[in-house]
Amino acid sequence: MLNEKLSEEKVFKDPVHRYIHVRDKLIWDLIGTKEFQRLRRIRQLGTTYLTFHGAEHSRFNHSLGVYEIVRRIVDDVFNGRPEWDDEERLLCLCAALLHDLGHGPFSHSFEKVFHLDHEDFTQKIILGDTEVHAVLSKVDNSFPKKVAEVIAKTYEKKQVVSLISSQIDADRMDYLQRDAYYTGVSYGHFDMERILRVMRPREDQVVIKSSGMHAVEDYIMSRYQMYWQVYFHPVTRSAEVILTKILHRAKQLHHEFYSFKHNPIHFYSIFEDELTLEDYLKLDESIILYYFQAWLEETDPILSDLCRRFMNRQLFKFVEFNPNIQMMTLIELTTLFKKAGIDPEYYLVVDSSSDLPYDFYRPGEEEERLPIHLLMPNGDLKELSRQSEIVDAISGKRRTDHKLYFPLDLIEDLSTKRTAKKRILELLNIKK
Amino acid sequence: MLNEKLSEEKVFKDPVHRYIHVRDKLIWDLIGTKEFQRLRRIRQLGTTYLTFHGAEHSRFNHSLGVYEIVRRIVDDVFNGRPEWDDEERLLCLCAALLHDLGHGPFSHSFEKVFHLDHEDFTQKIILGDTEVHAVLSKVDNSFPKKVAEVIAKTYEKKQVVSLISSQIDADRMDYLQRDAYYTGVSYGHFDMERILRVMRPREDQVVIKSSGMHAVEDYIMSRYQMYWQVYFHPVTRSAEVILTKILHRAKQLHHEFYSFKHNPIHFYSIFEDELTLEDYLKLDESIILYYFQAWLEETDPILSDLCRRFMNRQLFKFVEFNPNIQMMTLIELTTLFKKAGIDPEYYLVVDSSSDLPYDFYRPGEEEERLPIHLLMPNGDLKELSRQSEIVDAISGKRRTDHKLYFPLDLIEDLSTKRTAKKRILELLNIKK
Amino acid sequence: MLNEKLSEEKVFKDPVHRYIHVRDKLIWDLIGTKEFQRLRRIRQLGTTYLTFHGAEHSRFNHSLGVYEIVRRIVDDVFNGRPEWDDEERLLCLCAALLHDLGHGPFSHSFEKVFHLDHEDFTQKIILGDTEVHAVLSKVDNSFPKKVAEVIAKTYEKKQVVSLISSQIDADRMDYLQRDAYYTGVSYGHFDMERILRVMRPREDQVVIKSSGMHAVEDYIMSRYQMYWQVYFHPVTRSAEVILTKILHRAKQLHHEFYSFKHNPIHFYSIFEDELTLEDYLKLDESIILYYFQAWLEETDPILSDLCRRFMNRQLFKFVEFNPNIQMMTLIELTTLFKKAGIDPEYYLVVDSSSDLPYDFYRPGEEEERLPIHLLMPNGDLKELSRQSEIVDAISGKRRTDHKLYFPLDLIEDLSTKRTAKKRILELLNIKK
Amino acid sequence: MLNEKLSEEKVFKDPVHRYIHVRDKLIWDLIGTKEFQRLRRIRQLGTTYLTFHGAEHSRFNHSLGVYEIVRRIVDDVFNGRPEWDDEERLLCLCAALLHDLGHGPFSHSFEKVFHLDHEDFTQKIILGDTEVHAVLSKVDNSFPKKVAEVIAKTYEKKQVVSLISSQIDADRMDYLQRDAYYTGVSYGHFDMERILRVMRPREDQVVIKSSGMHAVEDYIMSRYQMYWQVYFHPVTRSAEVILTKILHRAKQLHHEFYSFKHNPIHFYSIFEDELTLEDYLKLDESIILYYFQAWLEETDPILSDLCRRFMNRQLFKFVEFNPNIQMMTLIELTTLFKKAGIDPEYYLVVDSSSDLPYDFYRPGEEEERLPIHLLMPNGDLKELSRQSEIVDAISGKRRTDHKLYFPLDLIEDLSTKRTAKKRILELLNIKK
Repeated sequence: MLNEKLSEEKVFKDPVHRYIHVRDKLIWDLIGTKEFQRLRRIRQLGTTYLTFHGAEHSRFNHSLGVYEIVRRIVDDVFNGRPEWDDEERLLCLCAALLHDLGHGPFSHSFEKVFHLDHEDFTQKIILGDTEVHAVLSKVDNSFPKKVAEVIAKTYEKKQVVSLISSQIDADRMDYLQRDAYYTGVSYGHFDMERILRVMRPREDQVVIKSSGMHAVEDYIMSRYQMYWQVYFHPVTRSAEVILTKILHRAKQLHHEFYSFKHNPIHFYSIFEDELTLEDYLKLDESIILYYFQAWLEETDPILSDLCRRFMNRQLFKFVEFNPNIQMMTLIELTTLFKKAGIDPEYYLVVDSSSDLPYDFYRPGEEEERLPIHLLMPNGDLKELSRQSEIVDAISGKRRTDHKLYFPLDLIEDLSTKRTAKKRILELLNIKK
Repeated sequence: MLNEKLSEEKVFKDPVHRYIHVRDKLIWDLIGTKEFQRLRRIRQLGTTYLTFHGAEHSRFNHSLGVYEIVRRIVDDVFNGRPEWDDEERLLCLCAALLHDLGHGPFSHSFEKVFHLDHEDFTQKIILGDTEVHAVLSKVDNSFPKKVAEVIAKTYEKKQVVSLISSQIDADRMDYLQRDAYYTGVSYGHFDMERILRVMRPREDQVVIKSSGMHAVEDYIMSRYQMYWQVYFHPVTRSAEVILTKILHRAKQLHHEFYSFKHNPIHFYSIFEDELTLEDYLKLDESIILYYFQAWLEETDPILSDLCRRFMNRQLFKFVEFNPNIQMMTLIELTTLFKKAGIDPEYYLVVDSSSDLPYDFYRPGEEEERLPIHLLMPNGDLKELSRQSEIVDAISGKRRTDHKLYFPLDLIEDLSTKRTAKKRILELLNIKK
Repeated sequence: MLNEKLSEEKVFKDPVHRYIHVRDKLIWDLIGTKEFQRLRRIRQLGTTYLTFHGAEHSRFNHSLGVYEIVRRIVDDVFNGRPEWDDEERLLCLCAALLHDLGHGPFSHSFEKVFHLDHEDFTQKIILGDTEVHAVLSKVDNSFPKKVAEVIAKTYEKKQVVSLISSQIDADRMDYLQRDAYYTGVSYGHFDMERILRVMRPREDQVVIKSSGMHAVEDYIMSRYQMYWQVYFHPVTRSAEVILTKILHRAKQLHHEFYSFKHNPIHFYSIFEDELTLEDYLKLDESIILYYFQAWLEETDPILSDLCRRFMNRQLFKFVEFNPNIQMMTLIELTTLFKKAGIDPEYYLVVDSSSDLPYDFYRPGEEEERLPIHLLMPNGDLKELSRQSEIVDAISGKRRTDHKLYFPLDLIEDLSTKRTAKKRILELLNIKK
Repeated sequence: MLNEKLSEEKVFKDPVHRYIHVRDKLIWDLIGTKEFQRLRRIRQLGTTYLTFHGAEHSRFNHSLGVYEIVRRIVDDVFNGRPEWDDEERLLCLCAALLHDLGHGPFSHSFEKVFHLDHEDFTQKIILGDTEVHAVLSKVDNSFPKKVAEVIAKTYEKKQVVSLISSQIDADRMDYLQRDAYYTGVSYGHFDMERILRVMRPREDQVVIKSSGMHAVEDYIMSRYQMYWQVYFHPVTRSAEVILTKILHRAKQLHHEFYSFKHNPIHFYSIFEDELTLEDYLKLDESIILYYFQAWLEETDPILSDLCRRFMNRQLFKFVEFNPNIQMMTLIELTTLFKKAGIDPEYYLVVDSSSDLPYDFYRPGEEEERLPIHLLMPNGDLKELSRQSEIVDAISGKRRTDHKLYFPLDLIEDLSTKRTAKKRILELLNIKK
C-alpha cells in the first residue's frame, strides 16, 4: 500500500493552488472516508462569514490545500535530497491532510464552552474505530500511530513535524492564502512558490535559504495583517460571543431541567460530560444551525433571543475596553444591567484577542515556539529576526485587544428606565 | 424613505467586485431582514461543491453581487441619461437584491420533487407578511408590488426588467464570474467593466453599443463553457440524482405510513401538499443535511443507503445514454436490476442536461427570449447574431446530453448473481 | 555538454509563468549570446504599443516564455513516456528559445518593404558565424543544423516540430497569454496548465486527451479574440501603414540620389539588396527610431511628415473599404488626392487583415495546416472540429477586413481647394 | 477650455487600473503633444529590465497611471466636499500627468554624470516654447505656471501638492503597483481602492481616515519590499554602474580630443555644458542605445568594452562592501587593478543604496518629509507611526547597503599576472 499508485492521477480544481494532485491510492482513500467528508460541513472560519460574506469555505477545502503544499515540498523540492528520508513522504502527506480532522462545529466557541480539544479528537479519530483508521492501517499497524504523532508534534523526526506545525508551515501558508482568497481582502499574498523552492530539510527542522528571506518577511506581514484585519475582526467576535452564550444557556437550561420544546438530543452527552467519539462525529454545523433555528421558538427568552440574533445577524455592539482601568465601570454596568432586567451574564461580555506575530526561541516558556532559521550561503543557520529588520521590529511583541460587547437595541428600548439607560449609554460612551 | 441615505456609506468586501457599496437606507434594511439572511444557508450551486470543492458559496453572496452590478449601471452609467427615469433606480436595486429570495434548499431537486417554483415564493415573500414586505412598504404601499412585478418580468417598463432578466443581465454577469471564482475554473472571465460602460437604456430594453460587441461575445462563450464544464458536470448531476431520490423515497415512505425513527416534521406540510410560506422559510440546507444525517439510521435500506451516499460522497457512476437508440437497453437493464434486487426506480436514472447558449427572437415560442441588440454608430439597432460570426455560429442551437446513472459498487457486489451482473456490466459497457 | 547542468538552477521572474527555470548549461549560455540579447531591442508586438500603451514588451520576453512552456511539457509531462525520446529534449528547448531569433525591427513592415523573411535569418543566425552557433556546436557539429530544422519544420521527427509550430503550440500559448497580460485586455486567458497536462506525444504529432477539449476550445476562442481585438486593431495598422511608407520613401529617395541630411548608413546594404547577416544583426528598434527622429529634419516633406506622424503618434484615420464594390471610389479618390497635392502613393492606403481561426486538414493546399487531434478514451484520434461544436462553427472560415487609411488633418487643411475637399470627405463618408 | 469636455469619453486599456478615462479636452490634447509622446521612449525603470525582463514599460505608461489615480480621487472621492475647491481639479490632473515630463534617458545615471536635474527640465518644458506649454496656455496665461508650481511643490495650496508628492501620493501608488505588475514580483500589492476611499482633503494636506490605517501599513510595507527587492537589486545596479561609466568615458574622451569613429553629435552640447531644452528633448533611450551599439566599434578599449557589456548584458560581479572597515582593502585593490592593467576608475566601483521607508516630521532637516496623518473618529489628526506599531518599528530608520562592483571575467583572464590575480580574488573573497 505504501507505494500503491492510482492508475491515473486524480486532480481537484482548486481556486488557490489551481490543481490539487493525488497519485497515491492511500490519499485518495482517506479523502473518501466519512470522517474526512464530514469536514465539508464545518466552516474553516467559523462565524467570519457574518462579517466577510465570501468566507463560507469549509475545512475540507483547507485540508486539501495543506496536503497539496506538503506534496509539492516533498515531491518537487525535497525529493532526492540526501537529508530527506523517502519513507517519511507518505507520513507527511497523511498528517497534512488529516491535521484538522478533529475540529467540531464552530470549533473555538464549542471547545471553550464544553472544555473540549479538537486535537484530542484528531488523535481519537486516527487511532479509533473509524474509516480513517482502517485506511491508514493498510500501510501497516503502526502507521496510524505515527501519523497521530506527527500531528501531535511528538514524532521523533522533527523535520517532518515542522512541515505541518511550525512558524512557517504548510497549514499557515494555506490558510493565509485561502482565507484571503475567500474573504477577498488584499492581505494574505506572499510568494509561496519562492518559499517552497528555498525550503531545505535539516536534522531537526526545515530551514529557509537566506535568499528567500524577503518572501518570508512578506509571509510574516501577511499573517500579522490577516490576524488583525480578518481573524480578530470585532464583528466576527460579536457573533462568536453570541454563539458561546447560546451554548452556555442551553447547557444551563438542561441542568436546570428546563423543558425544551425541541429537545437537544445531539447535545445530551456533551451536556453530561459523557461525549463519545461517535456522538462527536455526528456534530457538524448543519446540526448546530438546525437547533438554533428550532430554539427560536423556545419559551426561555434568553435562549430564543440569542438564537434570533445569531440566525438573523442581529449582533452585539462593542466598545474598546481597558481591563486595567475600567474594571469599576464594568462592575457598575453589571449592576445597571441587572437593574434594567438585562442579564449581564449573557448580555455584557468582555472578549479579548491576542497575537504574537513571530517569536524567536524562548526555551522553557509556555507555548515554546520554534523560530524560523535561515540557511546562510556559508552553511550557517541564523534565526530570522537577527537578519530581518522588519521581523526584528515585531518579534516577540504580543498585542492584545479587549472589547466589551452588549445589545445596544435592548438598552435603547429601556423606555421605562430612563436613568439606568442614560447612565449605561454614558458609561459605554455612546452619544445619542 | 425613497431617498433616505445612510449617514455613512456601508461597504462589504467582496472577492468578485472588490467592494459592494450601500448608500440607501432601504437596501441596508432589506439586507438585515431575516428572509434575506436566510439566503446564507442556501448554497448558490447546490450539489456542485461535491465536484468543485471551492463552490461552497451561498445565494446571499450572489444576491449582493447582482445588486452591486445593477447599482454600478444605474449610478455610474445610466445616471443623468434622458432615457432613464431616476425614480426607477431604487426599484431596480431592490429587484436585483431580492430576485433569488424564494429559493429553497438545493432548489432544483426540491422544486422538481415537490412541484414547487421558487419564483412563486419570491413573490409571496415580497407580498406576504414578512420583514422584507415591511421594509419595502416604507417607500409606499404600492412599492412591494412593483418590485415583485420587476422580478416576475411583468412590470410595464421593460428596460427595468431587462437589467435583471434578459440574455445579458446582472444576474448572469454576477453568477458566471462568481461561480468561476469559487470553483477556480478558468472560464467565466469577460470584461464586465466594458459591458457596463456600453449599456444604454432604450424604450423597452437595455442595448449594447456596438463597440462593445466583442466583450459580449466573450460573455456568451463564458456562459457556454460554464454550463457544460461546471453547471452540467456529470458528477454534480450524480449527487443531484441521489438527492432527488432521497426526497422521493422519504415522501413515498411517509405516504406508506412508514414509521420513521427520526420523524420528518419539517417535511409534513410539503409531503401533504399543504406548504405554507412560514414552513417554507424554515427550510434551508442545514435542515436538509440534519435529516439526511438522521436518516442514516433509518431501517428502510433505500433511504439510509441513499443518505449515506450523499453525506459521504459515494455517488453513482454514469455512462452516456442515447434515448433514441438505447431504450431497449434501458428496459433490459431495468428488468435485470429488479432481478438482482436493486430497485431501478431509485438506482437506475436517466438524467438530461440541455442548454441553448443564445437565441435570437422567436416570437410566440415557449420560453420566448429577448435577443441582445447592438446600438450601431448610426443609431440603428441590430440583433447580435447578425453582427457576430461567433454568436451566429452557436445561436439557436440547443445542445442536449443524456446520461444513465447507477451504483457501480452495488452491481459489483452481486456475487451470487453472476449472469445478471455480467450482462448488466456488458450493457453498461464497463470492462472489468 | 548535452547533459551538463548548472551547479544551481537559475530562475527568471516572469509575470506570465511566474518563474522560468533554467537547469541546462546550454540554455544558459544561449541566453547570454549577443544575438539572443538583441531580442531585448525588438518589441514583440511592433507598433501595438501606440494603441495599447502597456504592450511594450520585447521578443526576448516572449522567447523565454516559449522555452518555459516547452520545458514544462518535456520535463513534467512527457518525461518517461515510452513514445518520447529523451534525446530530443534539448533540441526542443533550443528550438523553443531560438524560434524568433531572426526577427528584425518592426518585422512585418520591414519584411514587406524589403522582401526579407525573418525565418531565413533565424536559419542564418543558427548556422552562421555567430555566438549562438558556437554555443550549439558544443553539443556536436550536427546539432545546430537539427535545431534549425526543427524551427524550419523540416525535422523528421514531427512530434518535436509540432511542439513549436502547430495550431496549438508553445509559441501561440505563450504569446496569447503574454500579449493579453501586457495589453491588459481580458481575452487571452485559457487553462494552459490543463492543456499541458493532457498533451501526449504520438508518432508524428502531439495530441490532446479528449478530456481537455474544453480548455482547447477556450484557447481557440482566445486566439480569435486576440487577433481581431488586438493584433488587427485598426489604430495599430495605421501606425504600421505609416511605418511602411517611411521605409518606402527612404528607399525611393536613396535610389533617386536624394541628399539626406542624415545619411541612412545602416540602410545602405538593405536599399541595395546586399544585406549581410552582420548588417542585419545591427538593426534593432533603437536604430530605426534614431533615424526616424533624425529624419524629422529632412527637407523632403513626405519623409519628414511621415516620421513626425510616427514619432508623435499623429496617425492616419480610416474607413471601412470593400474592394469588390468600391474600386471606382478608390480611383476617384486617387485622382482627387493628386489634384489636391497629397501624394496618394503615401497618403491613401488600403490595408487588409485576414485570419483563419482554425482549420482542419486540407491536403495539398497552400499553407497546409496540421489539425488538432483529440485522443479519445478508446485510443482513437479525432480531429477537433468533429468533436467540438464551437470549433466546428468557426473552422475553415476565413475572415478578411479591408480599411482605407488617409491623413484627415491634411484633407481638412485643403482650404484653397474647397471642391476637392468636399468631394473627398463625401467619398470617405465623413460628416463635418 | 477649463471645462471643455470631449464629445465622447476616451479610454485607454491599462493593465494596472483596467481603464484610464479621459473626459477633458485639455488632458487629451496634452497626451497628444510630442513632449508627452516622447516619454514612450524612456523606460520607467531604467536598467531594471536587465534583471527583471518583464520591466520594459515606459514613463508614458506610468504617467497615465498617476493621472488616473488622481482623477479617481478628485472625481469620485473629493468631488462635492466642502474642503475641496473644484477649480483645482484640472490643475491636479495636469500636474499628475506631467510630473515626470523632464526625465531623460536612464535618468539616474544621466543626471549623475552630467549634473542635470529632471525636475528642472519638467519646469522648462511646461514653461518653455513647447507644445505642452501651448496646450496649457489655452486655459489661461497663468495656468502653465501653476501646474509647474504644483510639480515643484511650491504651489500655495498644499493639499493639491500632496496628492502628487507626499509619502502616500498618486505617483508612488502607481509605480509600486505598476512596477510589481511588469516585473511579476509578488510585492507591490495593497488595497488602493480602500486608500482612495478614505482620503480626505484638509487645509494643507490630504489625510487618511483611521479606518484605512491597515491598508496604509500594507502600502508602506510594499514600498519597503519594492525598494530592496526590485529598485536596488544589485544586478540592476551593476548595469547602472556600467552605464554611468560609459557616459563618463565618452565625455572624457571628448575632452581629450579622442577621434570617435562615430561622432557623438547628440552629446556635444551636454559634454560642453551647453545643453538646450531643444537638444535635451531629442535625447531618448533609442538614441543612447544607438550610440552604445555604434561605440562597440571604437578603438578605445574601455569605451567599446563597456558598451559591449551593456548591450550584451555581460555585467560586473559584486561583493558586499563595508566602507567603515574595508577602505584599506579598497585601496589595495585599486593598486592591484592598476598593476594588472585594469583601470580602477572604470572597473572598480563602490555603489551605495539607501532608503528611509517612512519618516515622521523632522522640521528643519534636509529633505523634510511630510508625515502621513490619520483622521481619527473624533476629528483629531494623529501621525501614522503613533498609531501603527509596524510603521513605528521601521519609521525613521535609514537602511544603507554598499557593494563593490568589478569585472570578474577580466580578473580571471589575468593569466600572466598570477600573484595579482590571486591576491585580488582573495581580497574579493572569491573562491576558485
